[in-house]
Amino acid sequence: MNNKNTEKQEIKDLVLPQGFLASGIHCGIKRKRKDLGILFSEIPCDTAAVYTQNSIKGASISLTREHLIDGKAQAILINSGVANTGTGKKGIEDARVMAQQAAEALGIGENDVLVASTGIIGIPLPMDKIALGMPIVCAKKSPDGARDFAQAIRTTDTFDKTVVLRFNLGGKMVTMTGIAKGSGMIHPNMATMLAFILTDLNISAKMLQQALKDSTNETYNMITVDGETSTNDMVVIMANGQAGNDRISSDGEDYSTFLYALNELNIKLARLIARDGEGATKLLEIRIEGAQDETQARNAAKAVAKSSLVKTAVFGADANWGRILCALGYSDAVIDEDKLDIFLMSEKGRMMIVDQGEDNLSDYKHACSLLDCNEVTIVINLNMGDGTATAYGCDLSFDYVRINGAMRS
Amino acid sequence: MNNKNTEKQEIKDLVLPQGFLASGIHCGIKRKRKDLGILFSEIPCDTAAVYTQNSIKGASISLTREHLIDGKAQAILINSGVANTGTGKKGIEDARVMAQQAAEALGIGENDVLVASTGIIGIPLPMDKIALGMPIVCAKKSPDGARDFAQAIRTTDTFDKTVVLRFNLGGKMVTMTGIAKGSGMIHPNMATMLAFILTDLNISAKMLQQALKDSTNETYNMITVDGETSTNDMVVIMANGQAGNDRISSDGEDYSTFLYALNELNIKLARLIARDGEGATKLLEIRIEGAQDETQARNAAKAVAKSSLVKTAVFGADANWGRILCALGYSDAVIDEDKLDIFLMSEKGRMMIVDQGEDNLSDYKHACSLLDCNEVTIVINLNMGDGTATAYGCDLSFDYVRINGAMRS
Repeated sequence: MNNKNTEKQEIKDLVLPQGFLASGIHCGIKRKRKDLGILFSEIPCDTAAVYTQNSIKGASISLTREHLIDGKAQAILINSGVANTGTGKKGIEDARVMAQQAAEALGIGENDVLVASTGIIGIPLPMDKIALGMPIVCAKKSPDGARDFAQAIRTTDTFDKTVVLRFNLGGKMVTMTGIAKGSGMIHPNMATMLAFILTDLNISAKMLQQALKDSTNETYNMITVDGETSTNDMVVIMANGQAGNDRISSDGEDYSTFLYALNELNIKLARLIARDGEGATKLLEIRIEGAQDETQARNAAKAVAKSSLVKTAVFGADANWGRILCALGYSDAVIDEDKLDIFLMSEKGRMMIVDQGEDNLSDYKHACSLLDCNEVTIVINLNMGDGTATAYGCDLSFDYVRINGAMRS
Repeated sequence: MNNKNTEKQEIKDLVLPQGFLASGIHCGIKRKRKDLGILFSEIPCDTAAVYTQNSIKGASISLTREHLIDGKAQAILINSGVANTGTGKKGIEDARVMAQQAAEALGIGENDVLVASTGIIGIPLPMDKIALGMPIVCAKKSPDGARDFAQAIRTTDTFDKTVVLRFNLGGKMVTMTGIAKGSGMIHPNMATMLAFILTDLNISAKMLQQALKDSTNETYNMITVDGETSTNDMVVIMANGQAGNDRISSDGEDYSTFLYALNELNIKLARLIARDGEGATKLLEIRIEGAQDETQARNAAKAVAKSSLVKTAVFGADANWGRILCALGYSDAVIDEDKLDIFLMSEKGRMMIVDQGEDNLSDYKHACSLLDCNEVTIVINLNMGDGTATAYGCDLSFDYVRINGAMRS
């Protein structure tokens, strides 16, 4: 999907679209940091969501699915610190109670509250602390609360992940605010990816779902930090229609304009999430060109981005293209070894390191120096067709082992 | 496959079966250590092999496939240090020249020489050094040469991997010697698994191939060190018939006796390879019971053994069963979260940590202490059917990153 040249602008300030409020507080699930947040719309929103493909799912995912059957929601409640996964019937009940408490405090229907959780698996939520925190987090909701919310959903994320875009639709200015968390943990545990996108666009839930699904395949689903698919991943988009544009209820130019903007926002969030992968020191983008089709391109890009041997080579700034070749070979993309070209790119320059399958490393040290940057892109042209895809990953460092190998107690 | 109770005996000395010779020397591919080895039979052998599934394959694999079309071989030549992969037509030609040189020095047909290579990808073999070494390694072949051979095929392996089994077949004593290398590198590069099994059993090449394929699926194919499938993996078995048993040319009791023995030998080698995975401090066995079928059991066992989060938890001795649950969830096995049981086992004891999907960690510290051993087994009963499988892996330590993140130059 190419980015169409529409009037589009990234905003540095973390503003919310018209009619949205947010807040985030510390209620005691974590020791010190914020752990409970809400996003709230003054009116009900057309809403869409995509969820983890893991067959083990957090209790919050079951509840959110149920509450989204009608494509409408007005609030999203998130806690960090405990994933509420592997907690059986009690877990489902706890998620429901959270939604009820929030609905009461916000004066809206229980069915219009979505719930997300991230943190340790297999231990129950501290429902007493959450009950005490709920009226507070709901009362504090404000148009300026996005920063507090962004902090409340972090686990071992080292920075907030937010993107704000504005674009013009039939003379109306539409704002889209994305807030995400990446691969982190409060105690050693598994990465969970959560992203929440709010917009004042006027669009039907059906078209919102279609756009989110399309865009997710090219963005969030192309992130790999350690090859693990969390039990609690969730991306939600809420649209309250306050921008005043003509309602989007079918394909067409307006839908395309929105989809391009959504895609741009999601790519930016995906890059932020990959760059902040556990222990990561570098953002690693793998661009596949010339695959037989797009599915093969995606699989090949993800195989290379996921390879522990490629990731450690990037960490060590070693231009070891044999590892790239190996990962391409075990992906299910059709490869002709004698056709493929490999390029390294970073702020320090660009170099073709493999030319039609042959080593082109006349200057090995220079190739390695290209990897010694915060953002590294490896471009692989398979020269087999028109399929292209980009995967977003990171290097594998000592810190990944330190973070995940530390004792919980 | 259960181990049938036949007369079977593991031999501590690294002996070769009757009629086999071996040697290993340093010819200069590596800086100091042995890098060229041969296995030789005094008479042609029925021979079978299985190869890497990676679509990018080393040149030696193409040549060995071609030479094994007739199911016969008399020698295997191996070099370590350079993989002869990603080397184009020159690589294929080099492999052929190596086989020719060995055939000449050994006085056998070129077609009866198999070739294997392991080491760096993308650089050519130093053919001048190999040409000088070839007459020497061939002249040195001896019934006592297995240790030299085992050393010559090592890369970063920290110990030799050898198993010798004897079993009785119709009153005849059959010897089976297995020599393997695991995940290592000479310079930072990719892991390659090679295993060579010699036996004086009298068996047809067809039955040998059937047995090797069956056994490989349950043994070598169940090893995972870092989820990478090398371009050069190869397992070869040669049988010279010197034991004098009635020739095995179809299924039956003798074939079963052999298959059980072969399986036992391969499991022992697989465990040695997994234990010596790059940077490994612990052998990790994942046993799945009660899967809907064997394929699901294998996939689930490999998913857990391969999970970076499970591997780092084992390294850190953290009984974090949420990570096991997560990996089971993204494997393609059918899971009912409320049915599964998880046990930890090691020399320090045994503990059920999940009971019908519920946390059973009354003594968390004790559970963690069970992981603080050189060999750890995690048994997972899905309680969904009769499928069982075991995967062989290792933990993920700082040393994996150190070994693979170091600069090559």
